[in-house]
Amino acid sequence: MSTQEQNQQLAVTDRTRHRRLREQGSTEVAELDAILRGGFVCHLGVVVDGAPMVVPTVYGVDFDARTLYVHGSVASRSLVRAPAQTVCVTVTHIDGLVLARSVFEHGVNYRSAMVYGVPRTVTDGDELLHGLRIVTERCAPGQWEYARRPSRKELAATSLLALPLTEASVKTASGPPQDGDGPDGELGLWAGVVPLRSYFDAPEPDPVLPAGIALPPHVAALGAGSSGS
Amino acid sequence: MSTQEQNQQLAVTDRTRHRRLREQGSTEVAELDAILRGGFVCHLGVVVDGAPMVVPTVYGVDFDARTLYVHGSVASRSLVRAPAQTVCVTVTHIDGLVLARSVFEHGVNYRSAMVYGVPRTVTDGDELLHGLRIVTERCAPGQWEYARRPSRKELAATSLLALPLTEASVKTASGPPQDGDGPDGELGLWAGVVPLRSYFDAPEPDPVLPAGIALPPHVAALGAGSSGS
Repeated sequence: MSTQEQNQQLAVTDRTRHRRLREQGSTEVAELDAILRGGFVCHLGVVVDGAPMVVPTVYGVDFDARTLYVHGSVASRSLVRAPAQTVCVTVTHIDGLVLARSVFEHGVNYRSAMVYGVPRTVTDGDELLHGLRIVTERCAPGQWEYARRPSRKELAATSLLALPLTEASVKTASGPPQDGDGPDGELGLWAGVVPLRSYFDAPEPDPVLPAGIALPPHVAALGAGSSGS
Repeated sequence: MSTQEQNQQLAVTDRTRHRRLREQGSTEVAELDAILRGGFVCHLGVVVDGAPMVVPTVYGVDFDARTLYVHGSVASRSLVRAPAQTVCVTVTHIDGLVLARSVFEHGVNYRSAMVYGVPRTVTDGDELLHGLRIVTERCAPGQWEYARRPSRKELAATSLLALPLTEASVKTASGPPQDGDGPDGELGLWAGVVPLRSYFDAPEPDPVLPAGIALPPHVAALGAGSSGS
């Protein structure tokens, strides 16, 4: 698949040479890493009884060890039933709607990484702690230092998968619609991109939180809204 | 799986009876429909050569016909190779980070629907038009009336799958962390939820858009930012 993607990039035709390709494949590690750094939820695909199951779960990446950690009991249960099976972990960022003059040229701007591999179930206590720290810090940097860390009993009840970051495919689409210079450009219709953004809103304290416990700076730093609370 | 989910809901223990369950399964059609109405991108899982492949793509729902339409050439290619295979379409909304006192109780608030079934490749011209309208209107309501509709040639180049909305599983997690009333509640740590929100930003006109073409009201209506532009 990696080779195929690469070929797609190379196959620039006369029609596309002088314009930006909206959809692109990439096998660049830097691009893969940037997509993985930009999120904390992935969609994990496993095969259960011959059929695919796609579940959302949280992940983290040890970039030094090139290891992806995926949290999830559902996946673990299926992997107990079918060990040593290949899984697919997909991380997607939706950047905007592409509204063209023609319905056919409509699309979505996105960045998506698909990581394939045979995961290991993490059982070693030290690696479980390490992986949990990685996943926790991906969601909320600073939280691992702040919160109470898992007990041995809690660790034993934690399901974590480790996947080598070796086989991955990156696909992105960006830029404006591309039917502006053909006959559709003469239709007098509006065309462009409607960006989709996401942000962390002001933190909502647990209703049972005792008075006098301040919002820690690392949580306040998560979102713009939090600065005003 | 539906039955299993339902059982999970019924199995309320003494520990959970008087508090809100953070994670819940549901088989309610209304909850499924609400999740499907809330998005336009799904993650489609197919099995290719025995391994799962999870690809993001756009979807739409004909709620009257209880039919999910999924756009995508990647999936179609794999389905040509392995016809009549079950796929899984997952739609997920991430609502927030749940920061508890203990790492173990951390989580994500989310709403997720998984739809299973054997899809049909839509080949009939009328249904292709119908399905494309459904998908387009899910992304940008009003756009089907506004944009140039597909020609016969464009329709022939469009890949659309139809999936009956019969077998589906809904999972949600909501509410504050749940370690406030145990020993961890005495740690003096902040705990709560950091909501994650998304919105459409101000539309960005195609750079080659001729002057004098106004932003149509249905595009302006997509986002708050658009009202000021």
